[in-house]
Amino acid sequence: MVPRFCSQCGAGDLYRGWPAGDTHERLMCRECGHIYYENPKVITGCIVEQEGKYLLCQRAIPPNAGAWVLPAGFLENGETTEQAALREVWEESGVRAEIISPYSIFSVPMINEVYIIFRAVVLEITGQHGPETAACRFFSADEIPWDGICYPAIRQILERYITERQAGVFGIYVGNDDTGMVHFIK
Amino acid sequence: MVPRFCSQCGAGDLYRGWPAGDTHERLMCRECGHIYYENPKVITGCIVEQEGKYLLCQRAIPPNAGAWVLPAGFLENGETTEQAALREVWEESGVRAEIISPYSIFSVPMINEVYIIFRAVVLEITGQHGPETAACRFFSADEIPWDGICYPAIRQILERYITERQAGVFGIYVGNDDTGMVHFIK
Repeated sequence: MVPRFCSQCGAGDLYRGWPAGDTHERLMCRECGHIYYENPKVITGCIVEQEGKYLLCQRAIPPNAGAWVLPAGFLENGETTEQAALREVWEESGVRAEIISPYSIFSVPMINEVYIIFRAVVLEITGQHGPETAACRFFSADEIPWDGICYPAIRQILERYITERQAGVFGIYVGNDDTGMVHFIK
Repeated sequence: MVPRFCSQCGAGDLYRGWPAGDTHERLMCRECGHIYYENPKVITGCIVEQEGKYLLCQRAIPPNAGAWVLPAGFLENGETTEQAALREVWEESGVRAEIISPYSIFSVPMINEVYIIFRAVVLEITGQHGPETAACRFFSADEIPWDGICYPAIRQILERYITERQAGVFGIYVGNDDTGMVHFIK
């Protein structure tokens, strides 16, 4: 949500301008001069594989309740990307997983997000998960409910992963959602 | 800077608490209920190589004026990580570069930063650069002013890169600064 009052002095006189020497326009406070730096957020998660099947979770809460997604969520302060990715898997599926490698650095500049997705394997399936999840299960490639995966970034990452997996090659994907393309960089 | 006033209603009564169903403690406004989500920021940049030499820039401004660094900076809203990495190279060195592959996803949880660093090659050296940079040049591996590189994350990424480069192998590094280690994940 765009700030309406200054978080440092409480004044209601915010405006967009160019701070001296800056390369970007910023939201600033006319009263105390405070500058707001707004930066993209990182979403981390995992493609968790077991016996050629892939873990998906069905969202229990808005937005997009009922949609199937990879277990993933916002990187929080104080975490590494790997810790956050495994925490999200644990919270959303009750699966303890282990990271094998990074898989994607996928930017979605329209919504100011970067998806850092890892490949992981299962250590333990507890069957317990948090309230954000209605259901979770492992799908083989031809069982995946593609139409139920409403996040284009997640769908593109998973589609490409499965194609490469079946071809027996692995890379890391760096790309963005704007072009509808994922670029393979080897 | 930690907010002192609510950015949505201007009230000065912020506190730390656990929103219902949340997995983390948040800063909240007692007046209007607004919740502050504080997340790590992404720093993107490049290891730019030319004829076995590596591009470093000397900072002209605080913090750490005089230090040698990889060209890198904060990912801004509306950018992809690749766009931001090449923009930083351009602003800080006047070099137009092309990305070859991702090189690191390196978390520094103590300061809530993630360094996404790419390998890149030179397209054009213009000799012009922005006011943040005092000097920039390409260093061979044994010329690098290691003691002048004051950012541990940058030093670790570059050290490991050069070691691997000389061995002729490439991977992507995922790790964190807490352990002083960079983990190679293949």
